[in-house]
Amino acid sequence: MTQLYAVRMDVALPPGMDPAVRDDLLTREKAYSQQWQRSGHWPHIWRCVGQYANLSIFAVESNEQLHQILWGLPLFPYMTVSVTPLAGHPSDIALAGPDAG
Amino acid sequence: MTQLYAVRMDVALPPGMDPAVRDDLLTREKAYSQQWQRSGHWPHIWRCVGQYANLSIFAVESNEQLHQILWGLPLFPYMTVSVTPLAGHPSDIALAGPDAG
Amino acid sequence: MTQLYAVRMDVALPPGMDPAVRDDLLTREKAYSQQWQRSGHWPHIWRCVGQYANLSIFAVESNEQLHQILWGLPLFPYMTVSVTPLAGHPSDIALAGPDAG
Amino acid sequence: MTQLYAVRMDVALPPGMDPAVRDDLLTREKAYSQQWQRSGHWPHIWRCVGQYANLSIFAVESNEQLHQILWGLPLFPYMTVSVTPLAGHPSDIALAGPDAG
Amino acid sequence: MTQLYAVRMDVALPPGMDPAVRDDLLTREKAYSQQWQRSGHWPHIWRCVGQYANLSIFAVESNEQLHQILWGLPLFPYMTVSVTPLAGHPSDIALAGPDAG
Amino acid sequence: MTQLYAVRMDVALPPGMDPAVRDDLLTREKAYSQQWQRSGHWPHIWRCVGQYANLSIFAVESNEQLHQILWGLPLFPYMTVSVTPLAGHPSDIALAGPDAG
Amino acid sequence: MTQLYAVRMDVALPPGMDPAVRDDLLTREKAYSQQWQRSGHWPHIWRCVGQYANLSIFAVESNEQLHQILWGLPLFPYMTVSVTPLAGHPSDIALAGPDAG
Amino acid sequence: MTQLYAVRMDVALPPGMDPAVRDDLLTREKAYSQQWQRSGHWPHIWRCVGQYANLSIFAVESNEQLHQILWGLPLFPYMTVSVTPLAGHPSDIALAGPDAG
Amino acid sequence: MTQLYAVRMDVALPPGMDPAVRDDLLTREKAYSQQWQRSGHWPHIWRCVGQYANLSIFAVESNEQLHQILWGLPLFPYMTVSVTPLAGHPSDIALAGPDAG
Amino acid sequence: MTQLYAVRMDVALPPGMDPAVRDDLLTREKAYSQQWQRSGHWPHIWRCVGQYANLSIFAVESNEQLHQILWGLPLFPYMTVSVTPLAGHPSDIALAGPDAG
Repeated sequence: MTQLYAVRMDVALPPGMDPAVRDDLLTREKAYSQQWQRSGHWPHIWRCVGQYANLSIFAVESNEQLHQILWGLPLFPYMTVSVTPLAGHPSDIALAGPDAG
Repeated sequence: MTQLYAVRMDVALPPGMDPAVRDDLLTREKAYSQQWQRSGHWPHIWRCVGQYANLSIFAVESNEQLHQILWGLPLFPYMTVSVTPLAGHPSDIALAGPDAG
Repeated sequence: MTQLYAVRMDVALPPGMDPAVRDDLLTREKAYSQQWQRSGHWPHIWRCVGQYANLSIFAVESNEQLHQILWGLPLFPYMTVSVTPLAGHPSDIALAGPDAG
Repeated sequence: MTQLYAVRMDVALPPGMDPAVRDDLLTREKAYSQQWQRSGHWPHIWRCVGQYANLSIFAVESNEQLHQILWGLPLFPYMTVSVTPLAGHPSDIALAGPDAG
Repeated sequence: MTQLYAVRMDVALPPGMDPAVRDDLLTREKAYSQQWQRSGHWPHIWRCVGQYANLSIFAVESNEQLHQILWGLPLFPYMTVSVTPLAGHPSDIALAGPDAG
Repeated sequence: MTQLYAVRMDVALPPGMDPAVRDDLLTREKAYSQQWQRSGHWPHIWRCVGQYANLSIFAVESNEQLHQILWGLPLFPYMTVSVTPLAGHPSDIALAGPDAG
Repeated sequence: MTQLYAVRMDVALPPGMDPAVRDDLLTREKAYSQQWQRSGHWPHIWRCVGQYANLSIFAVESNEQLHQILWGLPLFPYMTVSVTPLAGHPSDIALAGPDAG
Repeated sequence: MTQLYAVRMDVALPPGMDPAVRDDLLTREKAYSQQWQRSGHWPHIWRCVGQYANLSIFAVESNEQLHQILWGLPLFPYMTVSVTPLAGHPSDIALAGPDAG
Repeated sequence: MTQLYAVRMDVALPPGMDPAVRDDLLTREKAYSQQWQRSGHWPHIWRCVGQYANLSIFAVESNEQLHQILWGLPLFPYMTVSVTPLAGHPSDIALAGPDAG
Repeated sequence: MTQLYAVRMDVALPPGMDPAVRDDLLTREKAYSQQWQRSGHWPHIWRCVGQYANLSIFAVESNEQLHQILWGLPLFPYMTVSVTPLAGHPSDIALAGPDAG
């Protein structure tokens, strides 16, 4: 069964980080994120306007899998992460079928 | 141009609310929400687990339109609402096209 | 697959609640809680010292099931609930087997 | 359509920053800010009294454009930014026309 | 000398307020606000999207005058108000004149 | 008499920590934790999903013993720790015996 | 073994409480508190200046006993309570004996 | 017209600051503060007990002047500052004259 | 010996309070405040702009006396009070004498 | 007259502090604390369980004396300190005499 979670990630890189280290980190972060997006487990990622932060939706098999994905993020040591488990909403038309009102 | 926003709505109904008033309110809330979902302006609504709250994504033309939709919610007087404007994320595969990496 | 969650529930009953209503509510809450405890889905419940609050561990199949259990609590309208999804810890001897160190 | 946003930016420069680096940064920040002010997209900027912070109003086409302007600020890596989307207020005399009361 | 202030007002009306009392209150609030807008002392008022709240700019002679205006708001007893004194910003093109850069 | 406590530990290692120092620290932390788990005084340890943090249950003789265990953690200088004393819950079926309901 | 705890209790009585009910409550609270003070389990109680609040020290056998005492306070339904478990401090001269330095 | 403001300044010097730099900074801070005290614009300064912080009252002509004074503090880069604009209080006997009651 | 304290009092009267009760309360509050101002123990009271709140300075003999004055305020049951003990500041020219610099 | 205060001190030493500097600091801190304990002005010091923090009670002549003691702590530059002035509690049996009830 697929579980949905909203995850907000705020990034804080040290101001004096070596540019080459930073570039390598960001290249690996992007590749890692896109690999999980293509797998279908990371269906949405949005930038929070004016913030070095994203809001993402994950669709995974378990708490365990979500943790492994997040823990493996190259930027994880520089992130503050908050996780909100989601469930179906009784007003969601996608759950009710096309005739529901 | 379509703008995306994440909106969290926490609901607090007074414990002693008249059940008929409450039922009417919830019926109107559901109909109102589903009308906007069908219009395409409210593409996602999820229940936050263990909370009388939802996390929603809105796709609207303007700040103005988002405010009018939220202000018109039958439950609006009982809600605490927070709004996060969203933008495209540079790692999003949907923005980069199928060949991006 | 079983998911673990830590859930803290803080209860605030209105001071002027009718004692008979209150007693009925608490009797139903206890029965409901114990039914889920016996099912194996609510393996731990502890009182937080000096608080009208509990810390509980849930072992459920999904975010969805956890929400349904919590939403159905007779005291839910009077509770503030916070949910922390849990995963296995790499130092946990229960996961490592008896020889791990 | 033009969108309005209130943006507060709090700046925290590391105490030991090289003065030449700092001066260059502040010169570029001022030039960047004034370029956007002249474009009409940054109609107001005020100093918050007693704070290394400003409150600004932006008038832009989209969430996307606002994010690009803010992300491009030379001081962005040293800022804490909060964004409040704005809409017209029903009591605003500018919206009601000269005869409204 | 004119002083500028940013003021955020969050309104919380009791859910069970008599509709006639509420309408009278809102009519008086609007008239009072527009009178001060026309005087030039309340040059901006914006709705905060998704909130029963406004962000306003006041241009007054003194702390004293600002307090008297706010205290006199018909909705004042139902508001949470925060006040941020403002000063000119060194990057503001309006202060620097048309040739400044 | 055994006392129960819920303890949450959030870890923040400095980004630039020497990898050998870090590995040594984590090896000692794991051994220390597992020694106390085997003693029966640290019956549960869970990872908080998406966080460098754990939620643990301790079963100790006294406040004093709990402090000595936590203070001795190799990662203690890098942790933010919160402690919640626990008591038996009146709805706990383990306290009520098999017939309680 | 005796456990020490610091407990802060903030009291909020509803403004419209019947004076006779209030007086009875306060009389019972005082008697209950003094009974536990005389037992030696509540060795200190101080008023927090300018607050309807006290800071107390409890010396009890267990988390369990502390919870039972606090739960039984006649004012408990009107209190916000926070509990800090205490241990001996290595600089405390009472622990070190008269010769320690 | 004179404006009153309460200003709280919390100071955080980096632990490893060079003692000569620190002494020079503090000497200049004291001289700067006393110059403004003598001018009549900084009529009160008190130490907050147990804190590296002060609570001060300023009597200035404008928000602008207050900002210039605070911005010029040698310790400003190490301070967290909060500003509360003040007005006359209707119960103040100094405003009411000697006969008011 | 005289002790100084800064005290902030925020007032929240219930919206539906009987006007005669409210007027009586405010009349008694003003008289009580002015009596203590005339005694010299309440040397300053200022309105916080835009708030139903005051910032006051008390000059009293002891914590005890301050508590008795605050506890006796007719509005005390409707107030949130915060107390900051004050001490002399080493930069205060009033403490240093006219020649200090 | 003796004043009572509750003081909580949270200590945060920089992780990379030189061990000899650290040891010297802690030795001086302990000696300083014990000197004031022996004077009778620091009657209680407890460790907060699981925290590098203590809760202490001070019995001093004035706000001024309390500040001087705290400011002189060798660890003061590494501490976050909060001060709560205390007064006698009307339910305290020590104030009421042996016959009070």
